[in-house]
Amino acid sequence: MKLIKTKAELRDMLKEERRRGKGIGLVPTMGYLHEGHLSLVKKARQENETVVVSIFVNPTQFGEGEDYGTYPRDLNQDTDRCEEAGADIVFAPEVEEMYAQKSAAFVDMDRLTDRLCGASRPGHFRGVMTVVSKLFNIVRPDRAYFGQKDAQQVLVIKRMVRDLDFDVQIVEAPIVREADGLAMSSRNAYLNPTERAAALVLSRALCGARQRIEDGERRGDVIGFDIARQISSEPLADLDYVEVVDAKTLEPLREIRGSVLIAVAARIGSTRLIDNIKLEV
Amino acid sequence: MKLIKTKAELRDMLKEERRRGKGIGLVPTMGYLHEGHLSLVKKARQENETVVVSIFVNPTQFGEGEDYGTYPRDLNQDTDRCEEAGADIVFAPEVEEMYAQKSAAFVDMDRLTDRLCGASRPGHFRGVMTVVSKLFNIVRPDRAYFGQKDAQQVLVIKRMVRDLDFDVQIVEAPIVREADGLAMSSRNAYLNPTERAAALVLSRALCGARQRIEDGERRGDVIGFDIARQISSEPLADLDYVEVVDAKTLEPLREIRGSVLIAVAARIGSTRLIDNIKLEV
Repeated sequence: MKLIKTKAELRDMLKEERRRGKGIGLVPTMGYLHEGHLSLVKKARQENETVVVSIFVNPTQFGEGEDYGTYPRDLNQDTDRCEEAGADIVFAPEVEEMYAQKSAAFVDMDRLTDRLCGASRPGHFRGVMTVVSKLFNIVRPDRAYFGQKDAQQVLVIKRMVRDLDFDVQIVEAPIVREADGLAMSSRNAYLNPTERAAALVLSRALCGARQRIEDGERRGDVIGFDIARQISSEPLADLDYVEVVDAKTLEPLREIRGSVLIAVAARIGSTRLIDNIKLEV
Repeated sequence: MKLIKTKAELRDMLKEERRRGKGIGLVPTMGYLHEGHLSLVKKARQENETVVVSIFVNPTQFGEGEDYGTYPRDLNQDTDRCEEAGADIVFAPEVEEMYAQKSAAFVDMDRLTDRLCGASRPGHFRGVMTVVSKLFNIVRPDRAYFGQKDAQQVLVIKRMVRDLDFDVQIVEAPIVREADGLAMSSRNAYLNPTERAAALVLSRALCGARQRIEDGERRGDVIGFDIARQISSEPLADLDYVEVVDAKTLEPLREIRGSVLIAVAARIGSTRLIDNIKLEV
C-alpha cells in the first residue's frame, strides 16, 4: 500500500492504473478510522481494482467554534487499518496541498442543504461538496463510498453528482454500530464513560421509534415527539433536532409512508453526535 | 463531424477516443458562431486529436430581464462552421438534457466575481461556472478554449480550475475584431446600422487609452475617466463600467504597471456589449 501526500503524485499513479483499464474506488474520510469506515474500504475492495482512501480533516466543513482543532487524528493507525482492509493507496494531503492560497471557488446547493445538519451547521455542506468535488477531480473514481450514518451527506453528494454531471457512482453502506447500539463515529472518542453511556439514548430512541412504527403508528409528529421526549429525558443530552422526513427529499412527513428517514442530532456533553434509521413503510 | 444531443452518447464516444489515448479539446460556446469562436476551434484543432465544440445557450447565466429568450440561434449554420474549422463533434443538448429537474447544486466563487460583469450581472458567473463544470465533467477535456473577449470569464474559469482541481488546461485566444475594430460578438447581430456605427466607440476609446499609456500616462483614474468621457459622448451609448485593473486579480490600479486589463461594458441601444485590452506596462 502506498501513502501519498500530493495531488500530482496521486494523479500520475492513477493515470497509469487507468491506462491499464482499472476501475478506481474512492473512500473519502476524515481519518481516525473505525469499523464504519473500514466497511466502506472492504466494499470498495470487492468492487474495484484500485482502492483509494483519502484521509483529510477538511477545515472548510467545520463552522466557527466547532471541533476542527481537536478532531482526532492518527495517521499511522489509519494507514495500518487501511492496509488491513485492502486499500491500495492512502491519500493524506496537508491543508496547504489541498487548498491553494486565497482559494475562492466552491460548490454549494439550494434547498436540500437547508434542513437537518445543514440548518444546524451553516456552511457545512458547502465545505463537504467542495472538498468532495476536488477529490473527485483529483482521483476521477468510478465509484465513491459513503456511510449511511451521514444520511443527509449521502443525499447531498448524490444530488451534486447528478446536477454537476460527475461521472461517478455513489455507493452507500449501512451504519456500523457498537455491540450496544451506539453508531460508530470518530467523535465517540470525545466521550467520557458517563457520556458514552448517555449517548446510547440516541440509538435507543430510534429503535423505539422503529418499534412503534412496526406496531402501526403512522403519524410523523407523534414519532418525532416521542424521540425528542426520550432524548430530552437524558440529563447529559442536549437535543439539536429530530426529523421524520422523506428519505429522498428530506421533506417532513405528516404520514409515515414510503422511504422514511428518521434522523437525530444531539450534544452529549460537548460532543455533537448524529444517528438515523431508514425504513420502508 | 458528429452532432450529438445527449450526454450519454457523448460520454460513450469520448470514452472510446480516450481509450485510444487521444487528447481532447473542448470549445464551450453559446453558438451563433463568429470568427472569434472559430479561432478557438482552429486552435483546438492544432493542439488536440479530438475537438468537441459545445453549443448551448445556458439559461442559468442570464439574469432576469436579460436576453436569454432572444439570444441568436442557428444550429445549422453553426455545425457547418464547426465542420469547416475542423471540429470532430458538436455537442448541442437541449436545456432539459443539461439540467435535471429541480437541479440544485451549483459552483460559485467569492471575490473575483464581485467586480466588472459580476457586479452588473449578479448570478452570471455562478451560471457560467456551473455549466462549465458540467461540461468539464461530461467531456473531461485535456484542454479547454476561451476567448479573451470575456476577460473576467477566463480569469474566473482559471481560478475555478485551480481551486476545484479540475485536470484541464485553460487556453486563451485573443479578441477577434471586425475590420473597423468592433470586437466580434454574437450579440452584434442585435445592432441596427446606426447602433453598429455607434458601437465603435468602445474599441476606439480603448485604442485611445492604449495610445495615451504608450505616450506615458500612468494614472489609472485618468485613463478610466478618459474612456468614460469618450463613451458617454456617444448619444446611443449607455456606459455600464470602465475598469482599469490588475489583469490577474481585477483589483483597480492607481498606477498603471505590470499586467493591466482595461475593460468596458456599455449598452448600445438595448444591446449590452463588452470589450477590453490587455497591456504589459
